[in-house]
Amino acid sequence: MPTSENRLIQLLGQRYPAESPLLKKGIGDDAAVIHPPGAKEFWLVTTDMLVETVDFVREWTNPKQLGRKSISVNLSDLAAMGARPRFFTVSMAIPAHVAERWIVEFHDGLTEKGNLQGAHLVGGDLSRAEKHIVISVTAMGESKNRKVLYRSGGEAGDLFYVTGELGRSAAGLRLLRKSGVRTRSRSGKEAIQAHRDPEPRCDAGLWLAQCGFVSCMMDLSDGLSMDLPRLCAASGVGAEIRVSNLPVFPGSALWGCDPVELALNGGEDYELLFAVPKSRSRILEKEYPATLPRITRIGEMTSNVGSVWAIGADEKRYRLPERGYDHFRTAVD
Amino acid sequence: MPTSENRLIQLLGQRYPAESPLLKKGIGDDAAVIHPPGAKEFWLVTTDMLVETVDFVREWTNPKQLGRKSISVNLSDLAAMGARPRFFTVSMAIPAHVAERWIVEFHDGLTEKGNLQGAHLVGGDLSRAEKHIVISVTAMGESKNRKVLYRSGGEAGDLFYVTGELGRSAAGLRLLRKSGVRTRSRSGKEAIQAHRDPEPRCDAGLWLAQCGFVSCMMDLSDGLSMDLPRLCAASGVGAEIRVSNLPVFPGSALWGCDPVELALNGGEDYELLFAVPKSRSRILEKEYPATLPRITRIGEMTSNVGSVWAIGADEKRYRLPERGYDHFRTAVD
Repeated sequence: MPTSENRLIQLLGQRYPAESPLLKKGIGDDAAVIHPPGAKEFWLVTTDMLVETVDFVREWTNPKQLGRKSISVNLSDLAAMGARPRFFTVSMAIPAHVAERWIVEFHDGLTEKGNLQGAHLVGGDLSRAEKHIVISVTAMGESKNRKVLYRSGGEAGDLFYVTGELGRSAAGLRLLRKSGVRTRSRSGKEAIQAHRDPEPRCDAGLWLAQCGFVSCMMDLSDGLSMDLPRLCAASGVGAEIRVSNLPVFPGSALWGCDPVELALNGGEDYELLFAVPKSRSRILEKEYPATLPRITRIGEMTSNVGSVWAIGADEKRYRLPERGYDHFRTAVD
Repeated sequence: MPTSENRLIQLLGQRYPAESPLLKKGIGDDAAVIHPPGAKEFWLVTTDMLVETVDFVREWTNPKQLGRKSISVNLSDLAAMGARPRFFTVSMAIPAHVAERWIVEFHDGLTEKGNLQGAHLVGGDLSRAEKHIVISVTAMGESKNRKVLYRSGGEAGDLFYVTGELGRSAAGLRLLRKSGVRTRSRSGKEAIQAHRDPEPRCDAGLWLAQCGFVSCMMDLSDGLSMDLPRLCAASGVGAEIRVSNLPVFPGSALWGCDPVELALNGGEDYELLFAVPKSRSRILEKEYPATLPRITRIGEMTSNVGSVWAIGADEKRYRLPERGYDHFRTAVD
């Protein structure tokens, strides 16, 4: 529930301001930041829930892929703050008809993917569900040299970048809805893979937090048109992005999608969105390692607080996120 | 799914042995124990899921009580290891028909109860559910002087104790099933209160971990007949308990329940079960503060590994947990 979730989280954050000398950051960023007394580093905590029929369709994924995705979406939150994954817990509500084998394979994928990124499963809970699977993962990470990137910290004039390509996961979802798991094209397979088993940008996130050039960062889970205004709100700025600069996933045109629309409004890319002061953009682009997922400059922070615009190829301006993707489709067609 | 949950957790713990120099204890205790590099204390993590229709019935509780219970069951896990609650996250899947007011009141109860025990809400996730509410809370605690009590650590000859009374929550559940929320007797109200809004034994847990007399501890969430064998398995011992020593909740007889059966097999008491070397039991009983919930000696650890017996008033012996409550009813009637 995107919009009301925004509103509710804002409401809850205001209503329950967590005050503790041990807490550097509570509700409202990709992860909470805790400083255990005496600890060399900050510790970060994030949690995500996946609900069958809402967040996944069991027929479109196998348990191992779903396990991988369940930890990846949390690892992405840690990546967004530049933390190194360390531990995680998983709770599941499972209908009686789900085989034990399914549950074990799910955990295989979950731990395999977590371990790859340095995160170990340390606990959980299993519960019965009447009909649908619900998965809740909580992940903990550790900072490096206490360098953590928040959503706040951006300033007018900073330039926006994203990692990777946008709209690939949404393209995969559209294709699954259209034709199920049967697809032969390379783009189709790539898109479905991105949707089923997204790759959190752990290494890129860590590098970006360590490099010292980045002013603010978050991960793209709900789509650029939803997430960009969140980053701007946290930094107290506005934004203008150039639609023609977006690193779209062109393959989706093959199955009738508009790559630009998906880049703007498709969710679950789990790429990183970050900003860099204009004076540091050249050195960032020079020093950013070629081994990491490519980064693309997409726009600029403005001083118009709360005003987030996308500028189409025709120079028409569209406000985010209030105007839906139909307007963008018109703008870029 | 009690039995298969046992089996699955054992299987998962064996399959994914988390190995990290930062981890003191992974899967298999009430909470995981982490040592952040440099930190003065150990940090503990636990998670519990509550599923509507399985773990709660919305008509039998109000959102505030449910919020309180959702954090309390986690605080109980921290209490069971002697940790001080610090932070928690909550994820919820919520059907569209649940009013925003319900969600806010739930969070009011959750944060109110958490804050009372020193735990602050630092993050969460909100998701849609098709039909039933699912709640997942993950809580973090901090040790005091690094004194943490595990389930392992008990030895043959140690004496078992429990805090409070057993079977009260199950008595409340039976009464709710029988007559819904309408009840007038004091015992009835007390039992329903215990079921709806259990009191985690945070202060008792902390005292017991600090006193230095206790060899092992856990909390009673699934009932003594399920949990006692778990404590014994972790400590590599057997047990004999005396049914006539159990601190039962006598009030449940008023609505046709067998207080002993509920003390043995009723779940959700969230009392503490712990063991103390025989040589220390006198000093424990002497020094245990009168301001904390009373403790009762209920039996003894034996050297018969995996053999857990309850001895009825008639001196008949019943194996736990394989024999159900029908046998106990016979034994104690």
